[in-house]
Amino acid sequence: MNLYDKTFIGCDSGFDESGLVLFGAPFDGTSSYRPGSRFAASAMRAAAYSIETYSPYLDRDLTELKICDLGDLELPFGSAEKTLAAIEDCAGRILDAYKLPVMIGGEHLVTLGAVRAAAKRFPELRIVHFDAHTDLRQEYLGEALSHATVMRRCWDILGDGRIFQFGIRSGDKAEFEWAREHVYLRKYHLFGTEELERDIGNAPVYFSLDIDVLDPSECPGTGTPEAGGVSFAELLNAFENISGLNIIGADLNELSPPYDPSGISVSLGCKLLREMLLTISDAP
Amino acid sequence: MNLYDKTFIGCDSGFDESGLVLFGAPFDGTSSYRPGSRFAASAMRAAAYSIETYSPYLDRDLTELKICDLGDLELPFGSAEKTLAAIEDCAGRILDAYKLPVMIGGEHLVTLGAVRAAAKRFPELRIVHFDAHTDLRQEYLGEALSHATVMRRCWDILGDGRIFQFGIRSGDKAEFEWAREHVYLRKYHLFGTEELERDIGNAPVYFSLDIDVLDPSECPGTGTPEAGGVSFAELLNAFENISGLNIIGADLNELSPPYDPSGISVSLGCKLLREMLLTISDAP
Amino acid sequence: MNLYDKTFIGCDSGFDESGLVLFGAPFDGTSSYRPGSRFAASAMRAAAYSIETYSPYLDRDLTELKICDLGDLELPFGSAEKTLAAIEDCAGRILDAYKLPVMIGGEHLVTLGAVRAAAKRFPELRIVHFDAHTDLRQEYLGEALSHATVMRRCWDILGDGRIFQFGIRSGDKAEFEWAREHVYLRKYHLFGTEELERDIGNAPVYFSLDIDVLDPSECPGTGTPEAGGVSFAELLNAFENISGLNIIGADLNELSPPYDPSGISVSLGCKLLREMLLTISDAP
Amino acid sequence: MNLYDKTFIGCDSGFDESGLVLFGAPFDGTSSYRPGSRFAASAMRAAAYSIETYSPYLDRDLTELKICDLGDLELPFGSAEKTLAAIEDCAGRILDAYKLPVMIGGEHLVTLGAVRAAAKRFPELRIVHFDAHTDLRQEYLGEALSHATVMRRCWDILGDGRIFQFGIRSGDKAEFEWAREHVYLRKYHLFGTEELERDIGNAPVYFSLDIDVLDPSECPGTGTPEAGGVSFAELLNAFENISGLNIIGADLNELSPPYDPSGISVSLGCKLLREMLLTISDAP
Amino acid sequence: MNLYDKTFIGCDSGFDESGLVLFGAPFDGTSSYRPGSRFAASAMRAAAYSIETYSPYLDRDLTELKICDLGDLELPFGSAEKTLAAIEDCAGRILDAYKLPVMIGGEHLVTLGAVRAAAKRFPELRIVHFDAHTDLRQEYLGEALSHATVMRRCWDILGDGRIFQFGIRSGDKAEFEWAREHVYLRKYHLFGTEELERDIGNAPVYFSLDIDVLDPSECPGTGTPEAGGVSFAELLNAFENISGLNIIGADLNELSPPYDPSGISVSLGCKLLREMLLTISDAP
Amino acid sequence: MNLYDKTFIGCDSGFDESGLVLFGAPFDGTSSYRPGSRFAASAMRAAAYSIETYSPYLDRDLTELKICDLGDLELPFGSAEKTLAAIEDCAGRILDAYKLPVMIGGEHLVTLGAVRAAAKRFPELRIVHFDAHTDLRQEYLGEALSHATVMRRCWDILGDGRIFQFGIRSGDKAEFEWAREHVYLRKYHLFGTEELERDIGNAPVYFSLDIDVLDPSECPGTGTPEAGGVSFAELLNAFENISGLNIIGADLNELSPPYDPSGISVSLGCKLLREMLLTISDAP
Repeated sequence: MNLYDKTFIGCDSGFDESGLVLFGAPFDGTSSYRPGSRFAASAMRAAAYSIETYSPYLDRDLTELKICDLGDLELPFGSAEKTLAAIEDCAGRILDAYKLPVMIGGEHLVTLGAVRAAAKRFPELRIVHFDAHTDLRQEYLGEALSHATVMRRCWDILGDGRIFQFGIRSGDKAEFEWAREHVYLRKYHLFGTEELERDIGNAPVYFSLDIDVLDPSECPGTGTPEAGGVSFAELLNAFENISGLNIIGADLNELSPPYDPSGISVSLGCKLLREMLLTISDAP
Repeated sequence: MNLYDKTFIGCDSGFDESGLVLFGAPFDGTSSYRPGSRFAASAMRAAAYSIETYSPYLDRDLTELKICDLGDLELPFGSAEKTLAAIEDCAGRILDAYKLPVMIGGEHLVTLGAVRAAAKRFPELRIVHFDAHTDLRQEYLGEALSHATVMRRCWDILGDGRIFQFGIRSGDKAEFEWAREHVYLRKYHLFGTEELERDIGNAPVYFSLDIDVLDPSECPGTGTPEAGGVSFAELLNAFENISGLNIIGADLNELSPPYDPSGISVSLGCKLLREMLLTISDAP
Repeated sequence: MNLYDKTFIGCDSGFDESGLVLFGAPFDGTSSYRPGSRFAASAMRAAAYSIETYSPYLDRDLTELKICDLGDLELPFGSAEKTLAAIEDCAGRILDAYKLPVMIGGEHLVTLGAVRAAAKRFPELRIVHFDAHTDLRQEYLGEALSHATVMRRCWDILGDGRIFQFGIRSGDKAEFEWAREHVYLRKYHLFGTEELERDIGNAPVYFSLDIDVLDPSECPGTGTPEAGGVSFAELLNAFENISGLNIIGADLNELSPPYDPSGISVSLGCKLLREMLLTISDAP
Repeated sequence: MNLYDKTFIGCDSGFDESGLVLFGAPFDGTSSYRPGSRFAASAMRAAAYSIETYSPYLDRDLTELKICDLGDLELPFGSAEKTLAAIEDCAGRILDAYKLPVMIGGEHLVTLGAVRAAAKRFPELRIVHFDAHTDLRQEYLGEALSHATVMRRCWDILGDGRIFQFGIRSGDKAEFEWAREHVYLRKYHLFGTEELERDIGNAPVYFSLDIDVLDPSECPGTGTPEAGGVSFAELLNAFENISGLNIIGADLNELSPPYDPSGISVSLGCKLLREMLLTISDAP
Repeated sequence: MNLYDKTFIGCDSGFDESGLVLFGAPFDGTSSYRPGSRFAASAMRAAAYSIETYSPYLDRDLTELKICDLGDLELPFGSAEKTLAAIEDCAGRILDAYKLPVMIGGEHLVTLGAVRAAAKRFPELRIVHFDAHTDLRQEYLGEALSHATVMRRCWDILGDGRIFQFGIRSGDKAEFEWAREHVYLRKYHLFGTEELERDIGNAPVYFSLDIDVLDPSECPGTGTPEAGGVSFAELLNAFENISGLNIIGADLNELSPPYDPSGISVSLGCKLLREMLLTISDAP
Repeated sequence: MNLYDKTFIGCDSGFDESGLVLFGAPFDGTSSYRPGSRFAASAMRAAAYSIETYSPYLDRDLTELKICDLGDLELPFGSAEKTLAAIEDCAGRILDAYKLPVMIGGEHLVTLGAVRAAAKRFPELRIVHFDAHTDLRQEYLGEALSHATVMRRCWDILGDGRIFQFGIRSGDKAEFEWAREHVYLRKYHLFGTEELERDIGNAPVYFSLDIDVLDPSECPGTGTPEAGGVSFAELLNAFENISGLNIIGADLNELSPPYDPSGISVSLGCKLLREMLLTISDAP
């Protein structure tokens, strides 16, 4: 006599039978402007019943897949390093079971934990990264581990030419200059995603989606809103472009429910996660 | 039959002299996600002084028309059936006086009351329906009368080929499949409204506008926000396309002020109602 | 590898081993002013980790008890009668297993479902009722089943002298007059609860706590806030007075998270539920 | 002289038959901290249906009285002087009809308009003033007409010993010193109101209630919240003490709905107005 | 040992060395709908650290310029005329030092003060004005000085053919008709700004940006939101078109933080001011 | 020509001439429930003009003292240890100049930095601590440095019998048991503060005020609201009791503006800081 389960909508399969495994990483310890992304995963699970499991865009349904939702990791807010270790451990176990981890952040730093796990298992790893911000600083407020440095830390692991950034519209001058030499960076839009399949081929890809790549009008609930972003429709189109990639892990981060008083950001996040799951599961 | 007279802006004519008659239907008893549309009509009347009676889009002014605002019906929250009866009665009386009823919901179920009244008097009735959701379920949470079933209940009355839906971007798989056989459904956009005049001709039309057809960025204050909607500009353009139809009744529903902390949804709702009134009064 | 459980804090025992059984009744379909109590149970579970399982007031800990949290019932928003039937069924099963049901509302009408179940099994049932409102109307907006009539409906079942109301500070004149003949009603405060043990003795008691008995300053998040209420401290004191009663079922209702922007009402609700569980379990 | 008639609950009598006449003065043009009291009267009318017309405290009902609600004056936001003239004119007409004006502010400056009207007709006028702030500055930000100077302006008209202030807990040092010579000022509480009948006797009294005399916990929605205020219960008790005075006019001001996100302040304001109307009408 | 400075980001040069001089004009005394723009300048300074000083759009950095931020003027809320005098004085001093004043409003009326100062020193002055509203009324609610009349008052000074309006989508019929004879008005969009350089040549230009020209979805936090506005991207494009003009003063007004619960409007305002400063400093 | 300074009201003296030195410690990196106290100091400075510099309670005025406000420390959010070092350094410099440091938190962990500085210079240091929570955990979520362990860490430095806690109403069972042996803990109220002067005598005292000791109704804007707290009036009374102690440093922490939608918590915080400064400066 148990009346409920509290997984994300349509993601109630067991671990062993699932191909995709969802988990939350409720950490926002280095957020410099507006913390709150720690609440994203639980807010999304609670609001998910407002959307359908069926996507009219893809004509597919979450209930046709086998997806497991592990719930949220328990993370210490004061320690970035311990947090990353816990995430790396969880993502690693999922990868070792030949499943695809999908993480709901949390601030963007959480991506580093999953990328560490993935890079160990896939030395040829590429990152496809949608974001408003470069996240390429060497350090931020004296810290090497920060939401503002996360892609630079990933570069430390992967090296030149492995990171593909889209939608970028904020950073300091030095970041943009550094980017020219070391990563593939496209500004403002998601134009160029149609070439990813050609450029990356069948190499393993980790897909990291910072929700602030969207315009703040469509997704106000985020840590550092940055005007002039892409629309939900553009983002869905770009999903088509990455559906042919060999995606081996993914995340959706920086959704911040406390700054979403109307609730539209959390609703959008749920829909986005549905489309992301259906897109990724579609990958070769 | 005058309930009170803090009317919507520019709608202070008497019942007898008016061609259009406005009334509120403050019911949200079957809302499954976020109730609050019961407050729409009173919030719109209170905020209406922030807009002008003049439309630069149409170069017409509400003060040039004769419109009566009856105020809000008093409805029992716990009973969908009694609510529909009260709405049918009010809309029926307006139609019997050869006037055009314009209802401010409330949740979308209220449309059924007005359609019942209209279909009795206009057996050839068509419905033009702008919405994010199909609303075509046979039942929802065990109930036949629900915001999620309202268009299916209208179909029970009107039958195949009489309902024209636009902007639809959410529903379960079965609804979309059922729609293919029984209604005219266009997804995502309002494209196709330009063919309505050709398809419908001079048949009587009830126009039902669920405000969630708009993108949640422009209208966050609604019960079930659904990303990827149309813009206000697209909607105004579509109004042009329906201005040539023989509209005999209309409604604007699902505006939910409690989820509109910045107030932009209520403001937009007022402007939309102005344009709707000016457009409809323009009809042949 | 399942990282979480989503019961109320410290209430994760199995059904069979538990003495108290918690469940949510997320229904607010007859709320006339501000709906939203449907979200109470899930909001409380999500916020519960902000409190401790240990009560310094009672020097007892939730972890010392065996409590099962069944989660939320799935209820149809449009039908009060079906909702009551589902609640009666759930509460009845718990009572039949010789356990104590504790329901988180929902609007106050949900109490009727649980009282129906209890009265069938305990013909000598009494109700102890803390509330700002009498809830004694014969009907409300034309409906017999309403949050504003719930205690009158309970009286229909139990008859004179069985209902003990405290904290009442709102109602129409007729309700107060009717109350004088039929129920025991104390205004404004919880004074008089110290006499309950003497008056009721060992008869079975259903305890219904409408959270709006508290002052709106301490609990703004409720459907119909009514100034001049009791304090949390007074309420805890009254809990002492009822701890000697033979309580066989209880509920906590009318907490409305959408009207709790600061979150203090939900936090208080969690703490109150902890104290209620510890108090009730203490009963003879 | 009927502006429109969505009246306050139970205040729908005609002007001629009424003994009390309500009107709104939606002006907040000199608010230095948080404007918004312009919305008070309309917000209170809209929320009034959440309270009862019956007072259990007084065992009286608004429906037993004859009260007229004129609606809101139309006031220019940029001109304090024109605003005061419009208020004086309206209050004067009511007084000339031998009725009792009750004004819903607006910021506190609106009181000056009504006091001007009253003092011309009642040269022996006294003011009883409940407030957190002295409002006794000679000027504020270079202006003589301001919410912060209103009682000093009233003193200009009435002179020494005519103003009785209670609940005061904020002002600059010079104001408190000036007060010692010229007005009767009691700090923090409403103690001393029990002596008013003795001190004032049958002289005509204007009663001005700045809602910020209440503690911000009970009434957060006000322009300048000041911690350490009185409770709703203390205020009701003080109403008893003034019920024996010869009150010839009254107001309730500084309620600011935009800073009342939970709605408890507007609800409390409605209840307070009910009690004020019932108390005043009771006066000899 | 002083740990902080509180200027707008990157605007901490001294007055004498600066070419641009920023100041706040926190006045909203004539706002008829939703006051609050008085808080704009301080909210923007507090939130500015969420953006970068570097613009990827222009590849320029605020730190490459010399800009002084004087802080906020102290203005009397009750007096529009005194407020305008204080603004005229401040802007005049900046102009007399051969620097470019940039004012953060406040409501739109503040523009009149700066335009008075500019017109005295530049008799050939033109105004380029982006706004949703015409602001061309002869008077509003009986007042000649109002946010709704400000451009008419500027016309009183400058005469025909000197005011260029873009983005206009609201006004009464008479305003649009009057505009045809006296000003250059373009509706809905910023189309036509590319012709400004040809039409105005090297004449001195005051640039006034009412933030409500943007769509309310992107900037909800404004006094009178008007659906159907321009996007941030369109606005940046229009900035390019005015970068060749001889701009001698500018302002950004009508941002209203109290109506920006998600914070996206203030964030956008900061970014807009950065782009405006970089664009203007670029002017010949 | 510099129009403003942005210190806390009445705290604009230079460092050298001041006896009290204010600084902000905007850190909330270990907050487990609701971060946001990082914004407290800047929000308080911005709102301070809503209160007076004069205290009618003490008949003293901030302008009679010499107080310097250094502004906010720049702190790395991801590193608790570096944050504590920066605070210790700042507090140490103030103490070395024979001045009294007053810190505005931030979460409660910031107290540890100041206590480290104070204990080095005053080996006989005592702590007087007002709080809802014990903060005596050995570790929390695996971290030794946390808002939930701060008083335990202070005990590590000071040892038994040196910490005096009041108002405590939350903690786990082990904390309360540990407290009995090692600290002086009083539950729920501030009773017992009148004995501090007798118990502590002239020993140096650091006074730490966690604002959540207040009831959430009066101060909703805090990280972990806990029902059943003390009132502002009780707190002012307790200030009298500590005014005779030899206070050598103090802080006010855990005010969280994002959870204060009505603004009453920030207003109260300003008033509390004024009273604290006036009380402390009064100390022998």
